[in-house]
Amino acid sequence: MKNIFLLGGSGSIGLQTLHVIEQYPEDFKLVGISLGNRNHASNELILTKHQPLIVCLKDDSRLGVYQNLFPNTEFVVGDEGLLSLATYPMDGLLVNALMGSVGLLPTIKAIESKKNIALANKETLVMAGDLIRKWVNQYGVKLIPIDSEHNAILQALLGEDKDDIQSITITASGGAFRDLPREALVQVTKGDALKHPNWQMGAKITIDSATMMNKGLEVIEAHHLFELPYNQIKTVIHKESIIHGMVTFKDESTKAILGYPDMRMPILYALSYPRHLNLQIKPLDLETLGTLTFKPMDFERFPLLKLAYKVGELGGLYPTVMNAANEKAVALFLNNDITFLEIEKLVIDTVEHFKDNIESPSLEDILRCNHEIYEKVGK
Amino acid sequence: MKNIFLLGGSGSIGLQTLHVIEQYPEDFKLVGISLGNRNHASNELILTKHQPLIVCLKDDSRLGVYQNLFPNTEFVVGDEGLLSLATYPMDGLLVNALMGSVGLLPTIKAIESKKNIALANKETLVMAGDLIRKWVNQYGVKLIPIDSEHNAILQALLGEDKDDIQSITITASGGAFRDLPREALVQVTKGDALKHPNWQMGAKITIDSATMMNKGLEVIEAHHLFELPYNQIKTVIHKESIIHGMVTFKDESTKAILGYPDMRMPILYALSYPRHLNLQIKPLDLETLGTLTFKPMDFERFPLLKLAYKVGELGGLYPTVMNAANEKAVALFLNNDITFLEIEKLVIDTVEHFKDNIESPSLEDILRCNHEIYEKVGK
Repeated sequence: MKNIFLLGGSGSIGLQTLHVIEQYPEDFKLVGISLGNRNHASNELILTKHQPLIVCLKDDSRLGVYQNLFPNTEFVVGDEGLLSLATYPMDGLLVNALMGSVGLLPTIKAIESKKNIALANKETLVMAGDLIRKWVNQYGVKLIPIDSEHNAILQALLGEDKDDIQSITITASGGAFRDLPREALVQVTKGDALKHPNWQMGAKITIDSATMMNKGLEVIEAHHLFELPYNQIKTVIHKESIIHGMVTFKDESTKAILGYPDMRMPILYALSYPRHLNLQIKPLDLETLGTLTFKPMDFERFPLLKLAYKVGELGGLYPTVMNAANEKAVALFLNNDITFLEIEKLVIDTVEHFKDNIESPSLEDILRCNHEIYEKVGK
Repeated sequence: MKNIFLLGGSGSIGLQTLHVIEQYPEDFKLVGISLGNRNHASNELILTKHQPLIVCLKDDSRLGVYQNLFPNTEFVVGDEGLLSLATYPMDGLLVNALMGSVGLLPTIKAIESKKNIALANKETLVMAGDLIRKWVNQYGVKLIPIDSEHNAILQALLGEDKDDIQSITITASGGAFRDLPREALVQVTKGDALKHPNWQMGAKITIDSATMMNKGLEVIEAHHLFELPYNQIKTVIHKESIIHGMVTFKDESTKAILGYPDMRMPILYALSYPRHLNLQIKPLDLETLGTLTFKPMDFERFPLLKLAYKVGELGGLYPTVMNAANEKAVALFLNNDITFLEIEKLVIDTVEHFKDNIESPSLEDILRCNHEIYEKVGK
């Protein structure tokens, strides 16, 4: 029985994680969770079903109601509450399914309290990958990616020697606008950008897929997760999203992980790693599928991916700058304040004008930079 | 430094194994080899280059010449000589690249002398898989397949728990006649059958690919290698021969091994397992390739594959009967004595008329049955 702490229990990944946990009552026990404040009926259902020991609420607006309903549960609140959850004095796996840079501090605190980490929050690694890697090694905890691409690569590396890797390849569906030329992007709407061809996901990551920023964040994430230089991390357009990730070894043998796009698979694998438990999802049927296709990545068509490689190589605060600018730009786009192409422009301009890099920034440097850039962008 | 004993050094796999060994003088040392008697110039070159301790010649027709040329080498001869080679008192890996049922006894003797086995000779497992498995377990040696499909599956299983397997899938290019309907097979010639679309291989296995008997033998081989029931062993038509084998786990995650069809890759992996050494072959380029395709296997189009599943389930002497009938039928076809479709007919008729099955045959039972069927078929 594995104790699970879930940060971001009300989001897309959070709800699917709960769904997975419910299928394996003998294997996993939800002991802590953080919840949003948009759907209290759903929250109450979750707490009734799982009876966690500790719950973090977004704010204290309905704290009293929850305390009355669940008198045996410890309630904490807000960003401070997330840290209490992350440091709860009990062994287990912390699933970080928070969105954006808010996931960073709780991850670090959970590592310090010697919890293993299953990470759906890629911003954590983009911003502070070097620090996280140092802490993970120092505290001897496991860091397991939930992102389907990295989860696939983790799976492909099982039993392998890191020295035998020639390269890893992250596949990209191409996002909502993969079949449109750059000229056509001038007129696309928020509604268009939110229609991902293969995956059902949250709004931020769906927009990031359309700009290919998501793949850029994933390249930086992969660099830190697998401790590989950027020239060993490749991307390829694979519009079916059946192959999620690949590892090519020094003998040119390539190990690929296949499956329909369904986040329950990587979520379960993150919980059960390195074992595979029975999962009732659609079995892969290559015969009916018939064809898998591959196209070279076009870095001119997707300048934010090109930027991510550059920013990754530069290191220091640059990835934080890019990530914060992107977070803000996507928020502005979702709020109808800017057009789709202005996302790219804002992110690229912000990175190009940034001059205050620090080679090995501290956590405080990173958080301050993140805050400053977020406030500045679009003003 | 690993000592290598190579049985079948003059054949297609044997010569490629030598080529691989030559690339890694720090890793592998050829200490024993068996050679054919068709190309003495090539043989002498091999012996000069590798200076093995023991050499088995096909017959003694030029024994004196070899002994004069290589006075420090021990020469042995014929089937008895193969056994001396297999039992040579030195640790190492025995690569069995012999063709047909002649590979069985030396494999068993090598296991008894505690050598690890790299097996390109699938007939060994088809005929005596249960016995080989028992000996391998008893003597605690490794049994590593060289066949590209099984080698791929071995690679996909690295670090995994056998209990997590849902199924394995062996891919089939479809062979020389994959685009022809059954009706058109009446007129095909030996020359047509020897043209494999993807692989450069020996004559016997190329014909077996055209009849799909090769895939049938591989299904039985996989059953013994990975100790899986036949309903967990699948086949799929994949005409590009890029994916060699796949494992689907209980969570529907599927691990596939990809590479261009080049036997040097599985040969090297069999030698270096579980590590991957640098290999200078064409790197896999999915972007240029563009497409991988899959089609369901057609068991009516390829009745010998259907027969292999049935024969595998029946067990006992049945796989030996099928294999011996096929070996003889292919020899008759290559000698222009029968037509292509008569291969199928001879094999199916022989299996259907066989009535003397033994549930757990001894090695003697298997060898006697093999000999009797081979002599009888086509008479």
